[in-house]
Amino acid sequence: MKRNGKSLRPIWLDAGGRTVGVIDQRRLPHEHMVQHLGTVDEAVQAIRDMVVRGAPLIGVTGAYGMYLAARAAAPGDRGSAELERAAARLRAARPTAVNLARAVDRVLQRILSAPDDRHRMALALETAAAITEEEVENCRRIGEHGRPLIEAIARENPGRPVNVLTHCNAGWLACVEYGTATAPIYAAVENGIDLHVWVDETRPLNQGARLTAWELGRYGVRHTVITDNAGGHLMQRGQVDLVIVGSDRTTAGGDVANKIGTYLKALAARDNGIPFYVALPSSTFDWDLTDGIREIPIEARDPDEVRYAEGWDGAGHRRVRLCPELSAAANFAFDVTPARLVTGLITERGICQATARDIGRLFPDKVKQTVPVSG
Amino acid sequence: MKRNGKSLRPIWLDAGGRTVGVIDQRRLPHEHMVQHLGTVDEAVQAIRDMVVRGAPLIGVTGAYGMYLAARAAAPGDRGSAELERAAARLRAARPTAVNLARAVDRVLQRILSAPDDRHRMALALETAAAITEEEVENCRRIGEHGRPLIEAIARENPGRPVNVLTHCNAGWLACVEYGTATAPIYAAVENGIDLHVWVDETRPLNQGARLTAWELGRYGVRHTVITDNAGGHLMQRGQVDLVIVGSDRTTAGGDVANKIGTYLKALAARDNGIPFYVALPSSTFDWDLTDGIREIPIEARDPDEVRYAEGWDGAGHRRVRLCPELSAAANFAFDVTPARLVTGLITERGICQATARDIGRLFPDKVKQTVPVSG
Repeated sequence: MKRNGKSLRPIWLDAGGRTVGVIDQRRLPHEHMVQHLGTVDEAVQAIRDMVVRGAPLIGVTGAYGMYLAARAAAPGDRGSAELERAAARLRAARPTAVNLARAVDRVLQRILSAPDDRHRMALALETAAAITEEEVENCRRIGEHGRPLIEAIARENPGRPVNVLTHCNAGWLACVEYGTATAPIYAAVENGIDLHVWVDETRPLNQGARLTAWELGRYGVRHTVITDNAGGHLMQRGQVDLVIVGSDRTTAGGDVANKIGTYLKALAARDNGIPFYVALPSSTFDWDLTDGIREIPIEARDPDEVRYAEGWDGAGHRRVRLCPELSAAANFAFDVTPARLVTGLITERGICQATARDIGRLFPDKVKQTVPVSG
Repeated sequence: MKRNGKSLRPIWLDAGGRTVGVIDQRRLPHEHMVQHLGTVDEAVQAIRDMVVRGAPLIGVTGAYGMYLAARAAAPGDRGSAELERAAARLRAARPTAVNLARAVDRVLQRILSAPDDRHRMALALETAAAITEEEVENCRRIGEHGRPLIEAIARENPGRPVNVLTHCNAGWLACVEYGTATAPIYAAVENGIDLHVWVDETRPLNQGARLTAWELGRYGVRHTVITDNAGGHLMQRGQVDLVIVGSDRTTAGGDVANKIGTYLKALAARDNGIPFYVALPSSTFDWDLTDGIREIPIEARDPDEVRYAEGWDGAGHRRVRLCPELSAAANFAFDVTPARLVTGLITERGICQATARDIGRLFPDKVKQTVPVSG
């Protein structure tokens, strides 16, 4: 996405091809730092520590991680074993988003099928780049398919902005360009729609307050940061027209794993008759799963992310403890919104209902035979 | 409530009676500071700045504020006008909790009916002390009425703790002793029940992470701090047996205004078949209102409470900015949970359903004639 003639992506191949550059998203918007990943270890750590985050982006980072592995691998069988170990470590870096395992496996299969070792590095790079551009194109199409939803609300409510609520960051920082949940927002704003975004701060890591607010501000989109507690109240008062969120993994039946707290917003949207859409590229579907609540692994992260808050104190980046020193905390990173609460899925192939039947209609080439075709 | 033989209340009359002492709840648990309120101005500011907070406690503080006004008032008609002005300012310090206006008005009426000016101060003090002890006794009874709910769950689930989720702080810090939502918890623990509390951190001011966690820890109650986003996930996974929250104002029909985010937890409890109880003294009922969402005024506070988080950085109390410098924020302090989502109200007179009929059954002396008797 260009702004003031400059295009910025959260991941790129550094000149010379020895390292992969990423924006360090832990410090945004307070500090703009980049990391240069030169090894699989560094790629694993960047994913685990959330230097990079967002399902599409950690998929792309995993793919480039396999490129770094291919650069370092020994020739022959020993190299193949090294590559398989690298893939296993990248896959395990974060458990919930399915994009990561899928992208890593795709690069692995491609390079293990290479006619000789010398081609591995080139094939890894080619595949990682292809995955990247596919994600960009998927997000662009999600924007085109989602834009009419916003335009319809604008037509029905002339003279006031369309109010969209989003949770966490499913913006270009989480993807590569456009974002998933933000793609329809950016597309509508580009088309001249008067739009305002309620940005859930998204504790504990505040990806909404930090990243979504920064992104939207950078692109001139009007927005207001709210606590995660506030969305239900706003919906009760008619101040939300539409909810759009991203996803970290969506089952073939339409159950949506996304950042913890998404389920609460889906409940409030249902209670107030407000459409609740999930924007996701097909790389986020897990075609093997049908029961999201039972089957999707939910990552438990360091409780200190809950016990502390991080931010800018005027002079530097600092963390402050919120609770008593001896209080325990628990930190579940995602929750699962059952398909019954989802109005629709905005994908690169169009919008479908969150049912096995309707998802299968859009993706007949992807759904498994074992998935029931009834919704 | 005594612990290690010491009884601590969040408000008291200082020796000599010239000032009213309060715990400064903005700094807990990191710093233990008290303020000594000597004027109505100082009482208004302590309420507005949330040095004291919680519906019962701001009622008691308002009553003592009227005592401070009576100390300072001129004799005769001029003094009466001063007292009415003081009452108006105290009532306006925070708009949502009805306890404040009710306590202030009760002291005002009492002292304006005094046979002569010299009695005003004594009557104000006597009335403020009576209100205080009534709140203590009400909370004690709420504990006795609510305890069997927890004990029944314990009986049905031997060998594991009862998991209670609460939002914000409706503990003794918000009241005077026992608390409202915490009263059944403390009573059950006193009775030997194995119990664990999920403590919502309660952004933006983190009364859960700061105050509820501190209270529970001080009384040896096992607890875990979670983000406000996490409750729905825990309920889906069967990790919550019961939700108990307090209230800032409850209508005669059972609509409950409470800390922002309460409504989201009520929705999740309903979706997962988990009982959702509201503990409140009758001082929190507004007998004049029937439609909480339309009629209860919701306080909008300083957006900087959302833009920043406050906590302890190892050396001092510090605030850090979470969002970009130019991002706007909105800060609604309360939301309204419709009566249909409330399993029951735990009051000093017993438990009733959140319906006009059942509330009227418990409080026939308080409900207005105009309230429909059908639920």
